Amino acid sequence: MTIEASKAEAGAGRVRLGMVGGGQGAFIGAVHRIAARIDDQFDLVAGALSSDPARALASAAELGLDPERSYAGYAEMAEAEARRPDGIEAVAIVTPNHMHAPVAKAFLAAGIHVICDKPMTLSVDEAEDLVGKVEGSGRLFILTHNYTGYPMIRQARDMVASGELGEIRLVQVEYAQDWLSEPLERSGSKQAEWRTDPARSGAGGAIGDIGTHAYNLACFVAGMEAEELLAQLTAFVPGRALDDDVQILLRYPGGARGMLWASQVAVGNENALRLRIYGTRAGLEWAQEEPNRLWFTRLGQPRQLLTRGGAGAGPAAARVTRIPGGHPEGYLEGFATIYAEAARAIRAARAGEETPPEVTYPTVRDGLAGMRFIAAAVASSQAGNRWTPIG
Amino acid sequence: MTIEASKAEAGAGRVRLGMVGGGQGAFIGAVHRIAARIDDQFDLVAGALSSDPARALASAAELGLDPERSYAGYAEMAEAEARRPDGIEAVAIVTPNHMHAPVAKAFLAAGIHVICDKPMTLSVDEAEDLVGKVEGSGRLFILTHNYTGYPMIRQARDMVASGELGEIRLVQVEYAQDWLSEPLERSGSKQAEWRTDPARSGAGGAIGDIGTHAYNLACFVAGMEAEELLAQLTAFVPGRALDDDVQILLRYPGGARGMLWASQVAVGNENALRLRIYGTRAGLEWAQEEPNRLWFTRLGQPRQLLTRGGAGAGPAAARVTRIPGGHPEGYLEGFATIYAEAARAIRAARAGEETPPEVTYPTVRDGLAGMRFIAAAVASSQAGNRWTPIG
Amino acid sequence: MTIEASKAEAGAGRVRLGMVGGGQGAFIGAVHRIAARIDDQFDLVAGALSSDPARALASAAELGLDPERSYAGYAEMAEAEARRPDGIEAVAIVTPNHMHAPVAKAFLAAGIHVICDKPMTLSVDEAEDLVGKVEGSGRLFILTHNYTGYPMIRQARDMVASGELGEIRLVQVEYAQDWLSEPLERSGSKQAEWRTDPARSGAGGAIGDIGTHAYNLACFVAGMEAEELLAQLTAFVPGRALDDDVQILLRYPGGARGMLWASQVAVGNENALRLRIYGTRAGLEWAQEEPNRLWFTRLGQPRQLLTRGGAGAGPAAARVTRIPGGHPEGYLEGFATIYAEAARAIRAARAGEETPPEVTYPTVRDGLAGMRFIAAAVASSQAGNRWTPIG
Amino acid sequence: MTIEASKAEAGAGRVRLGMVGGGQGAFIGAVHRIAARIDDQFDLVAGALSSDPARALASAAELGLDPERSYAGYAEMAEAEARRPDGIEAVAIVTPNHMHAPVAKAFLAAGIHVICDKPMTLSVDEAEDLVGKVEGSGRLFILTHNYTGYPMIRQARDMVASGELGEIRLVQVEYAQDWLSEPLERSGSKQAEWRTDPARSGAGGAIGDIGTHAYNLACFVAGMEAEELLAQLTAFVPGRALDDDVQILLRYPGGARGMLWASQVAVGNENALRLRIYGTRAGLEWAQEEPNRLWFTRLGQPRQLLTRGGAGAGPAAARVTRIPGGHPEGYLEGFATIYAEAARAIRAARAGEETPPEVTYPTVRDGLAGMRFIAAAVASSQAGNRWTPIG
Repeated sequence: MTIEASKAEAGAGRVRLGMVGGGQGAFIGAVHRIAARIDDQFDLVAGALSSDPARALASAAELGLDPERSYAGYAEMAEAEARRPDGIEAVAIVTPNHMHAPVAKAFLAAGIHVICDKPMTLSVDEAEDLVGKVEGSGRLFILTHNYTGYPMIRQARDMVASGELGEIRLVQVEYAQDWLSEPLERSGSKQAEWRTDPARSGAGGAIGDIGTHAYNLACFVAGMEAEELLAQLTAFVPGRALDDDVQILLRYPGGARGMLWASQVAVGNENALRLRIYGTRAGLEWAQEEPNRLWFTRLGQPRQLLTRGGAGAGPAAARVTRIPGGHPEGYLEGFATIYAEAARAIRAARAGEETPPEVTYPTVRDGLAGMRFIAAAVASSQAGNRWTPIG
Repeated sequence: MTIEASKAEAGAGRVRLGMVGGGQGAFIGAVHRIAARIDDQFDLVAGALSSDPARALASAAELGLDPERSYAGYAEMAEAEARRPDGIEAVAIVTPNHMHAPVAKAFLAAGIHVICDKPMTLSVDEAEDLVGKVEGSGRLFILTHNYTGYPMIRQARDMVASGELGEIRLVQVEYAQDWLSEPLERSGSKQAEWRTDPARSGAGGAIGDIGTHAYNLACFVAGMEAEELLAQLTAFVPGRALDDDVQILLRYPGGARGMLWASQVAVGNENALRLRIYGTRAGLEWAQEEPNRLWFTRLGQPRQLLTRGGAGAGPAAARVTRIPGGHPEGYLEGFATIYAEAARAIRAARAGEETPPEVTYPTVRDGLAGMRFIAAAVASSQAGNRWTPIG
Repeated sequence: MTIEASKAEAGAGRVRLGMVGGGQGAFIGAVHRIAARIDDQFDLVAGALSSDPARALASAAELGLDPERSYAGYAEMAEAEARRPDGIEAVAIVTPNHMHAPVAKAFLAAGIHVICDKPMTLSVDEAEDLVGKVEGSGRLFILTHNYTGYPMIRQARDMVASGELGEIRLVQVEYAQDWLSEPLERSGSKQAEWRTDPARSGAGGAIGDIGTHAYNLACFVAGMEAEELLAQLTAFVPGRALDDDVQILLRYPGGARGMLWASQVAVGNENALRLRIYGTRAGLEWAQEEPNRLWFTRLGQPRQLLTRGGAGAGPAAARVTRIPGGHPEGYLEGFATIYAEAARAIRAARAGEETPPEVTYPTVRDGLAGMRFIAAAVASSQAGNRWTPIG
Repeated sequence: MTIEASKAEAGAGRVRLGMVGGGQGAFIGAVHRIAARIDDQFDLVAGALSSDPARALASAAELGLDPERSYAGYAEMAEAEARRPDGIEAVAIVTPNHMHAPVAKAFLAAGIHVICDKPMTLSVDEAEDLVGKVEGSGRLFILTHNYTGYPMIRQARDMVASGELGEIRLVQVEYAQDWLSEPLERSGSKQAEWRTDPARSGAGGAIGDIGTHAYNLACFVAGMEAEELLAQLTAFVPGRALDDDVQILLRYPGGARGMLWASQVAVGNENALRLRIYGTRAGLEWAQEEPNRLWFTRLGQPRQLLTRGGAGAGPAAARVTRIPGGHPEGYLEGFATIYAEAARAIRAARAGEETPPEVTYPTVRDGLAGMRFIAAAVASSQAGNRWTPIG
């Protein structure tokens, strides 16, 4: 377990962090802040927390930021922080989707590492442009596909990579919620409003909000991206501008096939992200709502229940595990692992070193893959559910 | 509960039953016999138990049949039984698929009711022909889609029909097994041999063996058949002539959509048939391996776990429930319910009456729907996964 | 699996069975009849189905018994059947508890094997007397502690016996129901009336009704009986004459310890019999409401989920398994296994042979152990919860 | 949800915190630090992290403490911090058990609030003395019975308090682990060493380590302490000086009864703390390894699965909930809630106000109750398992 290791790392010096977005009332900003605190490897010292200046200031005060480092706009913040000797080393971008790329580019240009929420951009073009910017900048870009931080997901990925499943045949992933079963966007829910608004969310609704999480997770564990897909996107709620249900067939390299279902109208589901992968030799199953468990079955053997911190969990899980088996880690700890990995990479960069090989986080290229997935799904659906190459 | 009611019915006189197929070594024949015995409403008195005369005789002896009523062939049996004053009233057909239709037609022609295993025929044409024969005969035809016999499936169907779910949006069904993950058909498994042989199983492998069960169950509970589908059938095991994995998108009347996955190569799954239906007002979830439970959630309310024999199970479940909640009924009891329903219908026919309205069993038209489903899936898959009307 | 094997055995000739008790409205009689039918090894041919002559006759007619073999009383039945060349070979006793011993003795005296419901008698004296009668008679006595018929219970017992758990340390068993949470015995429930009436149930309420099941199951799997107990019996429902909740500490040979909880007032529990046994090398857990599963963990290894008919189930489970893994067997099949074992033993006796060593069923000595357990628990509770030897 | 509320509170000024114990290699110290960070309401600014001066200094450096505020001893630390204008307001005591009381008294004497790990002291006398010290000091004393911080435990407590369960009849609690199944204390495990050493752990092994957690949780939810108990403590591992298994009967006011089982030799269990409470009107069940769920059943109604952040969770759960339903919170968040409650109380004290009525945490009196429970259990066990008053 890394509970002490992470402390040792922290001794190497916390990372100075800024945040764009995440002011009062914003859910995901608070999540990022908790995630950054859990392993004590960041100091939040600057922010442009809201596009509304009053709210930005109030939010900064609440967080105890130096008023001088609470900025009215992200561009000003990037410039000012770059000039400070104690300026931020990294920025966390937790705005609505349409602001991700502009903000990221401003900070990259200022030489500051970026930690960015998903989906990465509004379009593939914008994503490709951002890849170029990141790769030209020499700066790090960490995309917070937080579900890849769960220890048993690391375990699963490692088992696939090491060949324990044999050749992969099936990648079945689903992500079911029910909170958009009714038109909340017309009764004052800000969360529902921007997620169902093409101007702020891009061409995809559920596909961008949760479908990309599902696809990213499947690819992360399977160790490969799909080649083509066939998608049917549906808006079940009358009048909704973006899809609230997504049904997709996927083809992976080597003949593997998959299904992806993402829905925000599946009554009785809270956040039911579930992944199942079957190979020639073994199969595994994992569900986000019980993240500390991983079902694993070798063909012809009894089912095994591997647990975080318990028997059967190997080094890939152990290095992102904080506390012993049976003491459940949750969503915030999985998210914190993305931040801890980011800190390790940033400290290496600070020392002029490569990111250590075991450090794992979703990159700008994963973000591009996600945007290509969304674009292909939208195109396939509009073309009458035809097979469409991804990217 | 019907435990005593069923006895009262039996007092009205057991049904004289014959069987075609089901000799020594045949799994499903033994299942039918147990199912027929559980509620004590049938007497098995005749059989053509095997196409191999010696095995037929030995099997009959083992079952205690009168040797005179152990026949070498089904045609002879139909003719001879029709002539006897104490001849069978119904025949159970438990042969491989390719013999279902010929046998059924012989017995219908002889004026004998038919209880037939699924899938009903080898082709849609054969199925349509059989529909004509059944409807022209005035005899009953019961298809043993046994999963429709589970009390909590009756409960689910009733909840959909009564509007508790609101308008149906999503019908997600899957049926995962792993027993064909390796080429058993090349190492002596008879079960695997005929199921992977187009001559005996028709154009579908997994789609016919388990996909039809999944589709039938989804339609039974949703109260409607799909209008069109888009299918991808795969044979993952090298050299296998029929599909061992099926991925399908479905469109139902009224805009409902569904996904169906059936696989026989999903390592770690035994008989994981699982149905989830979501409507505008509520959702429900059921899994065959825990058949006594039904998850039900009204939008915005806590999840409820309804149980067979327990609180929340209504009359549709109660009339096919034998024992109290917490005393699990299983696969054989669900199968027995199909037989009990058949007996109720046969006794009504014997008395010159209509089948009582509450008596529910899969009919020849459900069998035709299953064959149309298989044919559409095979056609869609061969055409490059295009939307294909069902029937 | 034994699905075909059981048929082969049946070929050796069904056992002629009579029944005492189990007339209209009686739950457990119907359960016994279904259990006897499932494997087709019995013919029910005679009965004294009710102490009310009219009900006895009507019940017999309903079951299709020859009216001549529907008796008004058990004594008359024992005598008459013993005289018939085609008389019954075994009788099933499904009366309220106070009639078990008298009926059993009458049939043993007539040379007829006995299958008897539990708890065996009203008192230890009566039980000891019955042991003498059985052992003096040379007849078989099978006590229907039906939960010992579940395949995964056979598996568990076999694992303990073969040393897979090492030395047993802990035997934790519980049996929770909620159906007596209110005074149903005062609102017309016959089931509740006799179970809470000392005259018909003996000195124990919940302890006799379900506590004995729990104790028997624990001993069956652990392979040993407890030496002493310390019990606290409570009647939570005001005015109830017998206990509805039982809390017991147990000491087993070799230093193993256990807790037993049985309750009929645990709201939210249907029939939650659950057994956990822990040894020096491994532990196992089983729950009656999911009887096809057995959790098994070797110290330091991942938890395994063994399944009936699946990987990890050995010969002890396989010989009482009818259908493949994933096709759930339930309460009635477990009960049927007791009947199938009885038939095997009776056929061996018929042939003048010993009961084959693999045939396993609860005996009159298990019944005596159950009565001693009840007596010790009642005595311990009345003595202020003191350690009390069992037997 | 309180995710933003907690930030608002933090705006009122973080609490200056010191720590005694918790140096390198100490598990629980790191847990306390993460817990203190999650809601950002504490600044860790001083410590006496180890009784080994070199380790103390290295640990302090690793945590980024000012070297001047890294103390060699707790007495020195209490004195020095009390003198500083920016001295700590509260100290977290995370030493082995035998040091809890001396350290607590030193800081109370210095006017500093205390947050202390459990079990509170080595003996009842010491606990009573500490109660006096706390109540004489006017300072706060928070005992980290962390499981009381789980939202669904708050929900359960609230449901009992509001009468939803009716009159309580049964309080069944258990806490099963397996990590001491072998004599780890003889193979170099420091965790095992001090937990099995009477000099450092007091008279109880498993009873002090986990039994007190189970008892505290049961009392917390049931809203009452037990009056007497009957205990059997066992050391199953040969040569072990303290119990590794605990079996207890409990009597509560009003006639409620309970069983408590705590074991560290139950192979296959990681941290299986489980609570079930049954009343005249309803029952509830909760398991620590799935902390976001609470089963709740009203008599005669279907079982309900209440979820943290979901439908059915009321205000008592909501005020300690950070993130939406389906996004699991875990052990660290539950622990953090104890710290957040402590911060609320400390800020109120700072302002000269009473602790707000909704703020809930285990107090020095709960610690005394725990010590009385341990003492009674040890006494009862030694006296041959007699009923023994608690306290």
